[in-house]
Amino acid sequence: MPENAYDRLNAKLKHAHMLGTVSGLLGWDELVNLPADSSDQRQEQSAAMAQVCHKASTDPKIDELLTDLESKQIQLNDDQRVVIREARKEYRRSAKLPTEFLQRKARLDSEAYHAWADAKKNSDFSRFAPYLQRQLDSSREFAGYLGWAKNPYDCLIDQHDPGMNAATIAGLFEELKIELVPIVNLILASEKKQDPSIFKGFPIAEQEEFLKEITASLGFNYNRGRIDVSLHPFCSGNGADTRMTTRFDEDNPLDSLFSSIHETGHGLYEQGLPLDQLHNALGEAAGMGAHESQSRLWENQVCRSRSFWKCYEPILRARFKKQLADIPSDDLYLAINAVSRNPVRVDSDEVTYNLHVIIRFEIERRLFDGSLSVKELPDAWNALYKELLDIDPKNDAEGVLQDVHWSDGSFGYFPSYCLGNMLAAQLWYAALDQLPGLEDDFEKGDFSRLLDWLRDKVHRHGKRYYLKVLAVSATGQPLSPKPLIRYLKDRYIPLYT
Amino acid sequence: MPENAYDRLNAKLKHAHMLGTVSGLLGWDELVNLPADSSDQRQEQSAAMAQVCHKASTDPKIDELLTDLESKQIQLNDDQRVVIREARKEYRRSAKLPTEFLQRKARLDSEAYHAWADAKKNSDFSRFAPYLQRQLDSSREFAGYLGWAKNPYDCLIDQHDPGMNAATIAGLFEELKIELVPIVNLILASEKKQDPSIFKGFPIAEQEEFLKEITASLGFNYNRGRIDVSLHPFCSGNGADTRMTTRFDEDNPLDSLFSSIHETGHGLYEQGLPLDQLHNALGEAAGMGAHESQSRLWENQVCRSRSFWKCYEPILRARFKKQLADIPSDDLYLAINAVSRNPVRVDSDEVTYNLHVIIRFEIERRLFDGSLSVKELPDAWNALYKELLDIDPKNDAEGVLQDVHWSDGSFGYFPSYCLGNMLAAQLWYAALDQLPGLEDDFEKGDFSRLLDWLRDKVHRHGKRYYLKVLAVSATGQPLSPKPLIRYLKDRYIPLYT
Repeated sequence: MPENAYDRLNAKLKHAHMLGTVSGLLGWDELVNLPADSSDQRQEQSAAMAQVCHKASTDPKIDELLTDLESKQIQLNDDQRVVIREARKEYRRSAKLPTEFLQRKARLDSEAYHAWADAKKNSDFSRFAPYLQRQLDSSREFAGYLGWAKNPYDCLIDQHDPGMNAATIAGLFEELKIELVPIVNLILASEKKQDPSIFKGFPIAEQEEFLKEITASLGFNYNRGRIDVSLHPFCSGNGADTRMTTRFDEDNPLDSLFSSIHETGHGLYEQGLPLDQLHNALGEAAGMGAHESQSRLWENQVCRSRSFWKCYEPILRARFKKQLADIPSDDLYLAINAVSRNPVRVDSDEVTYNLHVIIRFEIERRLFDGSLSVKELPDAWNALYKELLDIDPKNDAEGVLQDVHWSDGSFGYFPSYCLGNMLAAQLWYAALDQLPGLEDDFEKGDFSRLLDWLRDKVHRHGKRYYLKVLAVSATGQPLSPKPLIRYLKDRYIPLYT
Repeated sequence: MPENAYDRLNAKLKHAHMLGTVSGLLGWDELVNLPADSSDQRQEQSAAMAQVCHKASTDPKIDELLTDLESKQIQLNDDQRVVIREARKEYRRSAKLPTEFLQRKARLDSEAYHAWADAKKNSDFSRFAPYLQRQLDSSREFAGYLGWAKNPYDCLIDQHDPGMNAATIAGLFEELKIELVPIVNLILASEKKQDPSIFKGFPIAEQEEFLKEITASLGFNYNRGRIDVSLHPFCSGNGADTRMTTRFDEDNPLDSLFSSIHETGHGLYEQGLPLDQLHNALGEAAGMGAHESQSRLWENQVCRSRSFWKCYEPILRARFKKQLADIPSDDLYLAINAVSRNPVRVDSDEVTYNLHVIIRFEIERRLFDGSLSVKELPDAWNALYKELLDIDPKNDAEGVLQDVHWSDGSFGYFPSYCLGNMLAAQLWYAALDQLPGLEDDFEKGDFSRLLDWLRDKVHRHGKRYYLKVLAVSATGQPLSPKPLIRYLKDRYIPLYT
């Protein structure tokens, strides 16, 4: 038993964190390995783990130790103050959630995931609708426990991006939308297009080797992580054991590659947090928007750039000689930076992507302010897609059922994707400014200067700064959609005009 | 909350069981998936899980409910009495083990596993010796807590096979050894031999498909289970989610195939236990010997038989046409039933296998009665191999370091393998007697009558009967080495004379 209160607090936090990582592994295993008929037991396992995790994070000793540490008697440094601030916040949150609610929620998440997968497979929203309603009710119940009964959506946003709220996001998104729609229209009106069906017959084993080579060269440490296959790519675990996933299609190698690079961006953030503090706020990411800024920066600004492909195009061609024989360089680069009216968010390009997010944010706001019901959701979805992207989804599977997120009640998460895009572009220009010749490094397959810069500006700070403060601390400027608009114009206008 | 005490007890047992299965999955993941440098965190995770598992299984409410149920006031049926008897036994065991000891043990298991893997890789027993000593000390400490300080080895045997002890096993093994050594000498003196190096270049993906086809046809339900790759094959999980492993070698397809069939035998037992009782003794295997009887019966009596290969030889040849072109049927069958002086237990045949086990039993007895020290272990090992099998292990890796078992302190486990062989042969002759024409079924690839018979005689009984009683209940005869000797003579003497 450690002597001082701060160390004793950390021992408690570590116990809770370890149980949380086991719960996380259970979730990873469910999506990567679980046999078809084993989901009943997995629900029971998840519920049992939720119970012990909740118990560990609401241990009254944590409260006592925090109260001791918060008293004026104990001298604390800045780092310790961050840990205590966040531990208090987390303790308050956990202690207000009844165990029974958490168990019910864990069971609902598992049931709703399977209902969503089934509904999507059958393209039938009605099979998922009752579970979505239960997730909405459950989220309102959650917000109620935390004292946010009057603005549950802000409560959910705050879970993903502390300090953010719907009104602030609406302002940022409005500014972005006004500039973005004309850019999208300009690109889509262009004669220059690249059909993604030019790629055929890329063997999966070869794709896997290639993407492992690239993600390792970006800096992902495979001695503390893995990449596996799941329906929807994700990154889970922590910096001590980072579990990414991707998916493969022989006729769509760019999808696997860029989704892997995206998850690698998340993984690099996790692996850049201080390994000995993973159990407290110093070893925790600043929030989902900050996390997404890392995945997007590597996926888009870095790996869709001319400099990156100067290095990797020859390697790609050597590996897939036959498959790429008839595809000239310009077509390949255009395919990598293709922009299209795609109804599916995860298959969409980085330009239209932001409109996909703005649609979801709009729908979530309405679901929570009561102006939209679950029953009306498919129609509202389709109307917004028509309005902003001129798209008519051909069925529920490629429409309202496309995303996994609502199945586990992750409302308020989607905005983070677009906030992340904003921060990514903002970091990108700051890095280019501070690291002369950075893009020349990429041509040599060297990403270490950029990774070191991100480690210094973002990763090492853990949860010291929330998104808005982090943007200022890392780039000297407040969070804004302007760098994102600048970046999209810089990269796409020359390509498509 | 259920109304009656029996249901309330089961809810408690289920919670503890679910946490136990999560711990089990953590162990599976460690051996199948864990990145090289993630083992520190895994040790912390395992320790945290050991702590919550221990807490759940020593919940004082369990004691109260058991006391209620054990009182004469409550009417119980036979099944309920079995559940209560075993829950009491388990509760006593858990409650006597301090949390601190269990955490220390979990950490030691993980450290010792990695030390063993490293020692084996470098063929250097001295790297593992201190951990083995700690595991011996830990086992004695364990037996002490349970009130078996004077006969710790019997205590450990009882953990694996309730009702068994070293003296009984010594008697059975002595009878077996006397008959077995002449059979082994006869076979090994035979002119007929099959060099396993006749197999070359079997692609791993094809091997995997073939072994999945066979194990599924034996009855393994892949909708509630998986097979993956690990250093040492094993079967973990329970009937709701059975996780088997194997390993592959392009030049040794029989190793992967028969180790998979072996683990499938374990898996079929787990999947044959009642799914709604997995959390209590009715859904738990009778013991390790009984478990091993199932893996051995399928591996040896069934899948090394002429009838089995009448069905599967054509399928094997169709799949591996080129690789088997020059291997006549008789050579193939002889290779499947090859007997050799192999220093490695898991690579050895089912005839000499029993001598490998008898050696380990002898060594464990001596380690525990103090007549052998860890330092003297490699010499004692080599001397016994010389004496019983005329083998000089060429180094520690193929000698004393070959098995994973001692790395996690699984002393008293090895005897179960041979007890299982005895019961397997005993069940085999009972099944042949009661199911006329059984082997004709195998020629058609139909194993359902045998599986149904085993489900009826063994699986469905859970832990109602311990090994010795189970033998009588299933076959009408007390456990004896005679059927094993009869079987080995029946199958091997005609083949080798």
